[in-house]
Amino acid sequence: MSERRRKFWGWGYEGDGISDSEAAAVASRLAAAFGADAVRDRQPPRLEDLDLRAPRVAPPLALAEVFTDAPHERASHAYGKSYRDLARAWRGEAPNPPDLVALPAGEDDIVRVLEWAANERVAVVPYGGGSSVVGGVEPEVGDEYRGAVSLDLRRLDRVLDVDTESRAALIEAGVYGPRLEAELRPHDLTLRHFPQSFEFSSLGGWIATRSGGHYATLYAHIDEFVESLRVVTPRGVLETRRLPASGAGPSPERLFCGSEGTLGVITQAWMRLQDRPRARAGATVSFPDFLAGARGVRAVAQAGLHPANCRLIDPVEALLAGAGDGSSALLILAFESPGHDVAPWLEAALELCREQGGTVEPPRERSGADDDRAGAWRRTFLRMPYVYERVVGFGMVNGTFETAITWDRFADFHEGVSSELAKRTNEICGGAIVSVRFTYVYPDGPAPYYTVTAPARDGSELAQWDELKAAVSDAIVGLGGTITHHHAVGREHRPWYEQEAAPLFQEALRGAKRELDPAGILNPGVLIDP
Amino acid sequence: MSERRRKFWGWGYEGDGISDSEAAAVASRLAAAFGADAVRDRQPPRLEDLDLRAPRVAPPLALAEVFTDAPHERASHAYGKSYRDLARAWRGEAPNPPDLVALPAGEDDIVRVLEWAANERVAVVPYGGGSSVVGGVEPEVGDEYRGAVSLDLRRLDRVLDVDTESRAALIEAGVYGPRLEAELRPHDLTLRHFPQSFEFSSLGGWIATRSGGHYATLYAHIDEFVESLRVVTPRGVLETRRLPASGAGPSPERLFCGSEGTLGVITQAWMRLQDRPRARAGATVSFPDFLAGARGVRAVAQAGLHPANCRLIDPVEALLAGAGDGSSALLILAFESPGHDVAPWLEAALELCREQGGTVEPPRERSGADDDRAGAWRRTFLRMPYVYERVVGFGMVNGTFETAITWDRFADFHEGVSSELAKRTNEICGGAIVSVRFTYVYPDGPAPYYTVTAPARDGSELAQWDELKAAVSDAIVGLGGTITHHHAVGREHRPWYEQEAAPLFQEALRGAKRELDPAGILNPGVLIDP
Repeated sequence: MSERRRKFWGWGYEGDGISDSEAAAVASRLAAAFGADAVRDRQPPRLEDLDLRAPRVAPPLALAEVFTDAPHERASHAYGKSYRDLARAWRGEAPNPPDLVALPAGEDDIVRVLEWAANERVAVVPYGGGSSVVGGVEPEVGDEYRGAVSLDLRRLDRVLDVDTESRAALIEAGVYGPRLEAELRPHDLTLRHFPQSFEFSSLGGWIATRSGGHYATLYAHIDEFVESLRVVTPRGVLETRRLPASGAGPSPERLFCGSEGTLGVITQAWMRLQDRPRARAGATVSFPDFLAGARGVRAVAQAGLHPANCRLIDPVEALLAGAGDGSSALLILAFESPGHDVAPWLEAALELCREQGGTVEPPRERSGADDDRAGAWRRTFLRMPYVYERVVGFGMVNGTFETAITWDRFADFHEGVSSELAKRTNEICGGAIVSVRFTYVYPDGPAPYYTVTAPARDGSELAQWDELKAAVSDAIVGLGGTITHHHAVGREHRPWYEQEAAPLFQEALRGAKRELDPAGILNPGVLIDP
Repeated sequence: MSERRRKFWGWGYEGDGISDSEAAAVASRLAAAFGADAVRDRQPPRLEDLDLRAPRVAPPLALAEVFTDAPHERASHAYGKSYRDLARAWRGEAPNPPDLVALPAGEDDIVRVLEWAANERVAVVPYGGGSSVVGGVEPEVGDEYRGAVSLDLRRLDRVLDVDTESRAALIEAGVYGPRLEAELRPHDLTLRHFPQSFEFSSLGGWIATRSGGHYATLYAHIDEFVESLRVVTPRGVLETRRLPASGAGPSPERLFCGSEGTLGVITQAWMRLQDRPRARAGATVSFPDFLAGARGVRAVAQAGLHPANCRLIDPVEALLAGAGDGSSALLILAFESPGHDVAPWLEAALELCREQGGTVEPPRERSGADDDRAGAWRRTFLRMPYVYERVVGFGMVNGTFETAITWDRFADFHEGVSSELAKRTNEICGGAIVSVRFTYVYPDGPAPYYTVTAPARDGSELAQWDELKAAVSDAIVGLGGTITHHHAVGREHRPWYEQEAAPLFQEALRGAKRELDPAGILNPGVLIDP
């Protein structure tokens, strides 16, 4: 199998992306919103134009076959896929490339790389699919290290064992979404974890960042599906026991969910799987506005119905998605099961929506073969990063703010964040398209997700974004939200994580890290200081 | 309100317990099983007969009103409610009484107690309701401490705030179950957490030990309902942010769930609540044997139906409970909701049971007013500890083994544990009544719960129990189970916890503890060493 090369500057493989005509359509929509002058016409960056500093460390001979310093690999591992990352790539800037990229063939290689790195005081940045939008994989490790290695787990990509009775599988951490699902399909099982990064993100990355997946309720985070973990730390290998549940001390898996590569390198996990759904029932409900929709969502979330999909989009987002005329908020509701009819679930949810002023659109989906429709939606959803890379190329600031907040504070919170977004995008960019949706909902509160697209001035787009990001993040955390529901902390969210997380909890984490990573080589700069 | 005194040697308040005629009935059932000679007739122990050593430390003047050294308080805090505890109490032995009992009126008192204890090298054992069955509250702290204080939170027993919109409440950690529910009832809300210890166990204790509650599926552990925590550590107060969910680093709440008083003293929590259920549907399904029942339970657990009750009891347990003739295993299934009809949920579950060879008993419960029936069951369930204290008094070894295991290993596991139980009770006690049920079930496995009642020789009952406990625990952990699903680790499960938990995870926990409790005064001996 010849390996296709990933774009170092954008999403997916070289050569893949939206077509020229699609790009032109995007450009003209942006021009209509912000004026033709706001839309720049640039060619994607080329590797040879990238300012890539020379490696500062050389691999030891014994590990020569594990490491590479090929420029394309180093450039590809120089950042993730946040707005800052793409904007810098389009500008030809890669300030923190790894000195080396390690491509271990197995756990032994990882053990040896960590041993060498600890001895040589080289930082190690665990790398899955590289889809971090929070600076989680950029080797910006500070001057205390002689160099930095990006540890890419893509060669650990097998499903090692499938237990159909318990519906679980032992899976290597480096596998990307599509291959993982392809290996489970013959067993009629699925992880059903479809973050937007699905195509180019890995199981280990999902776990390390507490990724959000397919389920809008109940099983929002990947955490719920982790049965056990295997983790290589600089002190050795740690393996948790495979159990459906335990009350024996604090959950070991939960310490590693969200550890973002700072405590160890996740190499394998037993994951809880689902039957492939055979019955579905879905509907769309319109509400006069987003807050009215939020009341409907709250009623559904608190009824114990557990819809698989329960996504509320505001009128702007509905309009942009071609799913409305921009006058209503839309709630997309869906239930699924391995067999039993879920129509009663849907009916109960719709009744609650009606009580909150919702209007049920004529039913389009019912139990049965609606795989095509669901598949079409998913393909569109997963295609968004390809659009996104071009929007950045057209000179737009384009970013997201995602959070979670309890219901009692939601209305004020939403008002506060929205007005901060309006005010700051106006001040900083002279306007913006801002939309909001609920990506996940809980009985005690929603996870709002704000998307911003705004014109930027050539050359100052990073400063503009940083200013906007800081102001809105201040509002989110100041108004009681979390700095991240499912994008993780990385380096970009660090200042707000430090406000959000209890100082003594951060100390406790540091205490745990000192035991597992005494030399402090694992992903320094992320989450906590060593 | 005049305070009633708790029994130091058994369950509940002095004077409460089963009636003489009930006790006689229990005794005659035991005599029928094991012979009249096996049943001893003893009077409950008296405080004045207890061998209670003198306090080794005195409280400082500034904290005089917080501490007591009253013998009844010291005796009541000398152990929990495990078989070992009750057996020793009946024998008049209290080898590890606290030197002092602290009854803080608020967080400030706790801060001051911890400060004093750290300075004086006195161990502090956080104490909720004292219902630990694993030695979690016995001040057996070793010789490195000048003394030990039992820190009883019973005066922190208020519901401080109720958020009906998010369905959550801020609750002090020392409140027992009944008062907690009474305070929530006017808001039409409930925590719905009913461990068997409900009457005499506290919110803080439930959280610190990852207690198992009302829900047989989905929300088995209290962990799921913890929205945020306030914890007093020797380093200061730690408070987590109130959020429906977050992906910002490892979950701070999950570090304290199961920490068993070793990392800090939980003083308050925002807890997720439920609407009081208005609709219910339930049924009983019989299966030819326990393994057939297990197949039915697995089908239900993997269908995404989430029954509130899904308890499988083996033929012996069914017979003992008066719920069958001992020829079938019984599955008790129930669904509940805040409003919508849950009959379709029940029907879907029953269909799966039928497919696995289950026979649905004529329906007794349906949606509507079956509060009386559910209430009656709960009252019987909660009354068991009163029976238990007398069974110990009659000279029986009476203990439980509870665990969890994935489905693929369940049949072999159950065979192995059952035969070890049969063999060892035979060798050690000359026979026993052994029964099993599933207390909780997960899509990937059940939580089996074995109950053993066996005759013991007067004077050697502790040695007999210890031998049995060790052999069966070896089997449970050796066959891949967990040493505890919801009873916690404490001191009694420590040797098996050390086998079960990854050594490096235990190191990480110790690292966290060193940050929060540098002097190592919090509950030494439990879970990990300081």
